[in-house]
Amino acid sequence: MKAQLIWIALLSLATTRATPAVLTKEINTIEDDSECKPLVIAHRGASGYVPEHTLGSYSLAIAMGADYIEPDLVMTKDGHLISRHDNELGLTTDVSERPEFASRRRNQTVDGTELDGWFTEDFTLEEIKTLRVVERIPDIRTGNTRMDESFSILTFQEIIDLAKGFQNSVKRVIGVYPEIKHSTHFRRIGLPMETLVVDTLHRNGYEGQHAPIYIQSFEVSNLKELKKITNLKLLQLFESDKSLQPADQKELGTKLTYGDMATADGLKEVATYAYAVGPDKSFIIPRTSENKLGSATSFVDDAHNAGLKVHPYTFRAENAFLPAEFQTADKLPASLGNLKGELEAFLEAGIDGLFSDQPDIPINMRTSCVLKAN
Amino acid sequence: MKAQLIWIALLSLATTRATPAVLTKEINTIEDDSECKPLVIAHRGASGYVPEHTLGSYSLAIAMGADYIEPDLVMTKDGHLISRHDNELGLTTDVSERPEFASRRRNQTVDGTELDGWFTEDFTLEEIKTLRVVERIPDIRTGNTRMDESFSILTFQEIIDLAKGFQNSVKRVIGVYPEIKHSTHFRRIGLPMETLVVDTLHRNGYEGQHAPIYIQSFEVSNLKELKKITNLKLLQLFESDKSLQPADQKELGTKLTYGDMATADGLKEVATYAYAVGPDKSFIIPRTSENKLGSATSFVDDAHNAGLKVHPYTFRAENAFLPAEFQTADKLPASLGNLKGELEAFLEAGIDGLFSDQPDIPINMRTSCVLKAN
Repeated sequence: MKAQLIWIALLSLATTRATPAVLTKEINTIEDDSECKPLVIAHRGASGYVPEHTLGSYSLAIAMGADYIEPDLVMTKDGHLISRHDNELGLTTDVSERPEFASRRRNQTVDGTELDGWFTEDFTLEEIKTLRVVERIPDIRTGNTRMDESFSILTFQEIIDLAKGFQNSVKRVIGVYPEIKHSTHFRRIGLPMETLVVDTLHRNGYEGQHAPIYIQSFEVSNLKELKKITNLKLLQLFESDKSLQPADQKELGTKLTYGDMATADGLKEVATYAYAVGPDKSFIIPRTSENKLGSATSFVDDAHNAGLKVHPYTFRAENAFLPAEFQTADKLPASLGNLKGELEAFLEAGIDGLFSDQPDIPINMRTSCVLKAN
Repeated sequence: MKAQLIWIALLSLATTRATPAVLTKEINTIEDDSECKPLVIAHRGASGYVPEHTLGSYSLAIAMGADYIEPDLVMTKDGHLISRHDNELGLTTDVSERPEFASRRRNQTVDGTELDGWFTEDFTLEEIKTLRVVERIPDIRTGNTRMDESFSILTFQEIIDLAKGFQNSVKRVIGVYPEIKHSTHFRRIGLPMETLVVDTLHRNGYEGQHAPIYIQSFEVSNLKELKKITNLKLLQLFESDKSLQPADQKELGTKLTYGDMATADGLKEVATYAYAVGPDKSFIIPRTSENKLGSATSFVDDAHNAGLKVHPYTFRAENAFLPAEFQTADKLPASLGNLKGELEAFLEAGIDGLFSDQPDIPINMRTSCVLKAN
């Protein structure tokens, strides 16, 4: 923490001449600022408006007032952490149109899913940097396709640099909320991520539970290992399908499922290593057979009783993702429905934070802090 | 310049622990970096993708690699510089839906145009900050309307803060390119802008011709006055209609038109006070009767002979704004045509920089520097 405070102090000093900086020790962690609840985590950046995991989507998210920007992390062949949702590159880059990389195409099974494509672990960072990013869901986010091929893939360090520079511009703390993707897979191929993620964060001055950082994973063993090497906040993710097992648990031959972990007792066990949980929304308010919101479960209470914060994923404004009662009358998948309505139900259920592709919508519901945020 | 260098040095020091900063004396001005030509000025930010003049549009522009972000400046009642294209607020904010401001609606003539609406000079900054920004051309930029009411209006200082913080994130200099709007109008009502703009820039460490700043105006007298109080670069804008007079010249009773100023002799006169000129595109390549690009005029050569840099406006990717031969076959106003084609013709004509609502497109044409930019 000390290094970060020195950094902020120097930045404050550096800009004193222009405007009094308000970044002080008192608000060096976002949670200290109790007016701004729930925490808003910009999921892959403001990915509802700009292709995900780009300097554009992260920048726009911060400009909108997001508390945290959320990069998913995977590995390159030469051991660099980069930001992509998947290690397969075909879906979100122009790699399939690049003849020089045609021979890299292959099949492999990642976390039990057979994939055909181009994989980050087969590319050096230098090669990755030549790729251009395209929109993942162009039919639903046509507006985003206007920026196809405008951005390159970012390293984790570049994302940290963005947050640190930008927090001096907007005079508030910007958190970073990395997810370690496919931990077991990358460990198996000799590219383990955990120590690298922690070292990168510590080296950048992020240390201790009050630093504006969460490290998330769908796996369990790696979070337990992380607990031994860092005091940064850890978050356990839960897949929507309760019958599924975390990839490491399957590998270990245990029977533990996400459903087991989501019981009152399961959450107490999670609390021994995690600070917070990131369940699919359905753990908190499942949908009915008519795709409407049903009744809230005891998940939030159970998690709170175990001492865990609750940050569900993913809140998205397009009809395609909304409960039926919040969709627009035209029912077109790409039309923007009433995300605010869905959010109100989840806030009522007591959540502490949330992941959203349209962070501006939950932020603008926090009237007490919206003006200072954006 | 000294203050800015100290500021950059402090920022460099502050982040040394994370990554070696590359912002040094050697590239403290954008023009020193000769690989990156033409200069790309993000017109009202990346206003092709996010509502103009917002923290979102400026941030996205920088993320895309723009050299300069371009705020238009107008005044509040209590003497603050804010960023809007017009002093009328109805077109780009929610002011018309705000009952508490209904009584502020009025008619007035600004620079010869009769307007009905709400005017920045009737609002304090505190009041202005409660307004929410909406897209100016929603039919053409439907994608931008997704962010209606996501942003507030920015002060000039907030834009400078953005550029300074962000340049430390992306390790390159970010320029600011303010336009003084309606100078004669604001002077007449007791809210002159020129000294305030210059003082703000000097106070932020921007001094001298090498600072990454251009101050632009469609008027003449104010640029001549500015020349006396600052060494920052000045740019003379030219309205597309050559028969028009700058507002100050009309007020002074001279006969000087933009057409007169655009002759070889006229440009020599402009060069006595301005560093560069910002003509409407038609001064360089007029369109034919079929709305196609015609032949290049002698404007660029004449300006260069006078020692002036040439930065034409405005390059926009939608059919509505493109020459016929670069529009898509569907001819729909909102469809994105071949802006690259239009840009190639203007680059061929020898321009030094350009204003664009889609800065990513010209930036991605500068292959030698695109990778370090975004």
